[in-house]
Amino acid sequence: MEHKYAVTPRSEEEKEKVLKRLKRIEGQVRGIQKMIEDDRYCIDILIQISAIESALKQVGFSVTERHMNHCVSDAIRKGEGEESIAELMKVLRQFGK
Amino acid sequence: MEHKYAVTPRSEEEKEKVLKRLKRIEGQVRGIQKMIEDDRYCIDILIQISAIESALKQVGFSVTERHMNHCVSDAIRKGEGEESIAELMKVLRQFGK
Amino acid sequence: MEHKYAVTPRSEEEKEKVLKRLKRIEGQVRGIQKMIEDDRYCIDILIQISAIESALKQVGFSVTERHMNHCVSDAIRKGEGEESIAELMKVLRQFGK
Amino acid sequence: MEHKYAVTPRSEEEKEKVLKRLKRIEGQVRGIQKMIEDDRYCIDILIQISAIESALKQVGFSVTERHMNHCVSDAIRKGEGEESIAELMKVLRQFGK
Repeated sequence: MEHKYAVTPRSEEEKEKVLKRLKRIEGQVRGIQKMIEDDRYCIDILIQISAIESALKQVGFSVTERHMNHCVSDAIRKGEGEESIAELMKVLRQFGK
Repeated sequence: MEHKYAVTPRSEEEKEKVLKRLKRIEGQVRGIQKMIEDDRYCIDILIQISAIESALKQVGFSVTERHMNHCVSDAIRKGEGEESIAELMKVLRQFGK
Repeated sequence: MEHKYAVTPRSEEEKEKVLKRLKRIEGQVRGIQKMIEDDRYCIDILIQISAIESALKQVGFSVTERHMNHCVSDAIRKGEGEESIAELMKVLRQFGK
Repeated sequence: MEHKYAVTPRSEEEKEKVLKRLKRIEGQVRGIQKMIEDDRYCIDILIQISAIESALKQVGFSVTERHMNHCVSDAIRKGEGEESIAELMKVLRQFGK
C-alpha cells in the first residue's frame, strides 16, 4: 500500500491555510537565529523554541485529522482499514515520543 | 532579575554550531511547504514534521544545558540560585507540555 | 454521539494483556514511593518516572489503535466518521501536549 | 560522582506532599484497570491516561527543581557543576522524548 500522493488533494483554500502557518514557523525559526546572533538571554530563546514546537504540533494534528478523514476513511470503506491505521499509528508513536 | 542578554556571550564557534542547526530546520520547514504544494502523502509530511520536532528539541536541550552552565551557575555562586532555577523550571514546564 | 461503553468489547485475552501492563505500572508507581521514602538520589527517581511515562504512552497508543480499528471504523462505515475522528483528535491533542 | 542517596534528604513535610501525589496516581492507574474490565469507551480511558501523564510530569518537574536546588547547586559550589548538569540533562533528554 505505497502512496506518494494524497488520495484526495487539498483545495487551494486548505493549502493556503497550512502554508500560512508554515511560513510563520519559518519566520520564527529565523527569529531564533537572530536571537542567537544577538546573544539574547537563553530563557527568551527557549520560550521562542517552545512556541515553534506548539505551532508545529498543531500543524501535525491538522494534517493527521485530514489524513484520517480522507486516506484512512477511504481505506476503511475499501476494507483496508487495519493496514492504513497501523501505518498512521507508527507515525503517531514517533510523534508522541 | 530581568535579563535581556546572556551573562556569558557565545563564542563564534558556539554560534556557528547552533546557527547551522537552525538553518537546517529552516530548510526542513520550507521542505514541508513544498510537500503541501505538491499534495504529497500525509504520512510522509507527518514524518518530516516529527523530524523537525526532534531537531528543535535538541536545540532546546543544548540551549538549556548552556544556560545552566553559565547563567544558572553564575546565579548560584552569587546566592541567587533559587530564583534562576525557578525561572528555568517555568520554561521547562512549558517545554515539557 | 455519547458512548459509555466500547462498541466492541475486548476479548478476555486482550483484557489480560492491557491489565498486565497496567498492573506493572501500578507496581512501578509504588516503587517510586519507596524511593522517596528511602531518600534515594533524585536522578534515579527521575529515570523511573520517565520509564513509567513511556509505559503509559504505550498503553495509550494501543488503546488508540484499538479504538480506531473498532469504534472509529464502525462510525466511518455508518457515515459518522468525521464526528468520531474529531472526538479522537480532541484527545490526541490533549495527549500530545 | 556516583550517588545512591539525595545530598540533602527531604523533610517529612516534603515527603508527605510527594507521596500524596504518587498515591493518587497509583489510585488513578487502578481506576483505568477497572475501566478496561468494565469495557468502558476508549475515549474516556484515553482521557484518564492523559490525566495520569500530566500528574506524573508534574511530579517529575518538582523532583527536578528540588534536585537543581540541592544536589546541582551543591556540585556547582564545589566546582563540579558541569558534571552534575550533564547528568541531569541526560535524564531531561530522556524525559523530553
